[in-house]
Amino acid sequence: MGKGEQTREAILERALTLASRTGLDGLTIGSLAEELGLSKSGLFAHFKSKEALVVQMLERAAQRYFEVVVKPVLAEPRGEPRVRALFERFLRWPELVPQPGGCIFVAAAIELDDQPGVARDLLVRMRKEWLDFVAGAVRRAIAVGHFHAKVDPEQFAFEMDGIGLAWHHASRLLGDPRADERAHRAFEALLAAARVPRR
Amino acid sequence: MGKGEQTREAILERALTLASRTGLDGLTIGSLAEELGLSKSGLFAHFKSKEALVVQMLERAAQRYFEVVVKPVLAEPRGEPRVRALFERFLRWPELVPQPGGCIFVAAAIELDDQPGVARDLLVRMRKEWLDFVAGAVRRAIAVGHFHAKVDPEQFAFEMDGIGLAWHHASRLLGDPRADERAHRAFEALLAAARVPRR
Repeated sequence: MGKGEQTREAILERALTLASRTGLDGLTIGSLAEELGLSKSGLFAHFKSKEALVVQMLERAAQRYFEVVVKPVLAEPRGEPRVRALFERFLRWPELVPQPGGCIFVAAAIELDDQPGVARDLLVRMRKEWLDFVAGAVRRAIAVGHFHAKVDPEQFAFEMDGIGLAWHHASRLLGDPRADERAHRAFEALLAAARVPRR
Repeated sequence: MGKGEQTREAILERALTLASRTGLDGLTIGSLAEELGLSKSGLFAHFKSKEALVVQMLERAAQRYFEVVVKPVLAEPRGEPRVRALFERFLRWPELVPQPGGCIFVAAAIELDDQPGVARDLLVRMRKEWLDFVAGAVRRAIAVGHFHAKVDPEQFAFEMDGIGLAWHHASRLLGDPRADERAHRAFEALLAAARVPRR
């Protein structure tokens, strides 16, 4: 990795932390330059536009997500243990790659859902890939006999995502000290229902 | 209701629609004045600051939420029918009071969770009141024997909220044509688990 590349990655990592607090709208090349103690023109050399910055930041976030959530989970035994590991790392993501203002994908989802463009398309693709990955792990849990054959993997992914969003909301906005416990109980109920035939 | 009051409410209703698309950050007294064809100084006569505008807009949203979601639900029979009605109206809220960019409370939650202040405190109070209201309806469903005594009403509210958030995400960002169906299936599973003893 060349020096230019290293600098670019350091910038993107910092942009991720900053955008976690300010949102994508609040992230500007100016504010990022200030945070990094760089000149605005220096930053422009790396990112020609705000959109380019956002796109590369999302790509960087996805790469880090793969490293700290997806990859370690693949080392777990297939079936329920892997699905469980997946949920645990999914919840810990905003702390594994520091996002003091909460998950960047959640913030980006709310901001970009009304803004057609390259960044939105990228985010949609990433989010679908993640949901597909969860569904794939569930499919394998069915294949190895941990989950019932009638479990709908996409439905499981949808519901697990909802638990993550409710946890994000309860812990970030409401400051609910029981947010973790609630999320885990909800997930255990989801697992329990997957283990036996649904009505 | 005086004329001044009527104007103020019309402004707040428009602010709600606008903020649904742009987020609270994107909502400015200037952009709102333009949208309404009013002078910026005319708008300042009603709202002395951006924060005052946001606070009054959230209060207006809560009042409308009460009118179109909470109040009609109270006319339903206690127990499971009321809990069901509650879920249905909760999902339809962004269409009952037009929010073309999705639920204002979801957008506000993401934006305000890092911004201590009057608006954040208000939103937290509103969100807790809503979750308490859901929990209260569940408590009554237990009292009338529709739900099992072991059901935790706050946990139910947490999980129902998660389904709403996942629905919001799937329908708004991902454009998933099955978002409605997924949300309903998730809710039916939550109801089914509430009707019988949890393991």
